[in-house]
Amino acid sequence: MRYTSCMRVLGIDCGGAYTGYGVVEMDSGGGLVCLSCGAIKLSLRDPLPQRLSRIYDGLEALIVEHRPDEVAIEGIFYALNVKSALLLGQVRGVAMLAAAAAGLDVAEYSPLTIKASVVGYGRAEKQQVQDMVTRLLNLAEAPEPMDASDALAIAICHLHTAGTLERQRAAAR
Amino acid sequence: MRYTSCMRVLGIDCGGAYTGYGVVEMDSGGGLVCLSCGAIKLSLRDPLPQRLSRIYDGLEALIVEHRPDEVAIEGIFYALNVKSALLLGQVRGVAMLAAAAAGLDVAEYSPLTIKASVVGYGRAEKQQVQDMVTRLLNLAEAPEPMDASDALAIAICHLHTAGTLERQRAAAR
Repeated sequence: MRYTSCMRVLGIDCGGAYTGYGVVEMDSGGGLVCLSCGAIKLSLRDPLPQRLSRIYDGLEALIVEHRPDEVAIEGIFYALNVKSALLLGQVRGVAMLAAAAAGLDVAEYSPLTIKASVVGYGRAEKQQVQDMVTRLLNLAEAPEPMDASDALAIAICHLHTAGTLERQRAAAR
Repeated sequence: MRYTSCMRVLGIDCGGAYTGYGVVEMDSGGGLVCLSCGAIKLSLRDPLPQRLSRIYDGLEALIVEHRPDEVAIEGIFYALNVKSALLLGQVRGVAMLAAAAAGLDVAEYSPLTIKASVVGYGRAEKQQVQDMVTRLLNLAEAPEPMDASDALAIAICHLHTAGTLERQRAAAR
């Protein structure tokens, strides 16, 4: 049975110190494969513009290497304080710019939606998300650091959502 | 009397709907000249990544055209709410990236410092800032929109500060 067409997504978990990334492909049978994951680590001693450049260059290189069809990132966090929101916004702006420069659409999901999509429960702990990501992608060990695991969860959430939308469109035809 | 070496600064006033810019040069006698000012207007209907691309491309074109020596932006606003801070952060991230991509340093000033530098009073109204910018740059009329005037004020603040630092260094020699 054909669930969905083959699709490749770059998930990005934006953060001030670590920006996690994960490239996941859903094959035509609905199976998920992890193509790459990790985190861009930043020295907080570097000036902010240089840190943002490193994130942009890192994401640009990932997009060139893995040619994702779409990009997914975590949506707005209302619970953060203003200072964290500004720093996070700066990183998110650069991540969205890297996607736009490559002509890729950016999908946003709330933390609740991502956890519900991966674990089946919106209030799941980070550890549960990491365990499910490891199982869903058939990885030999849990992706580290946690930011990489979170980025894979964002990519999986987008693939699940895109697959569901495609099945709905197919059923409506 | 030679106050400072000739220096050209791009001031950027980051905002969600308008991003103001102003290029100001201080000549070797300490006189200020406005080379360009305006605002990059964004449609809030466009997806955010496209809006951020327009800001990046606009600032990149300004840097190529006017070859500023340095870039100055307004520092962090603690009074904003989290949602505004995230949006502003995204724009600031892209502005800083445009500067870093051109190899330019970015200086940040608080709104209080900018107003004190231009008007002589940190709690000055926006209108007073605009009036002083118009006078300091010998402009025939007030720069519009207000975001352009704010960006010129940021550039002037940086030139004043850089001039003071240079005089201090010269006195210490």
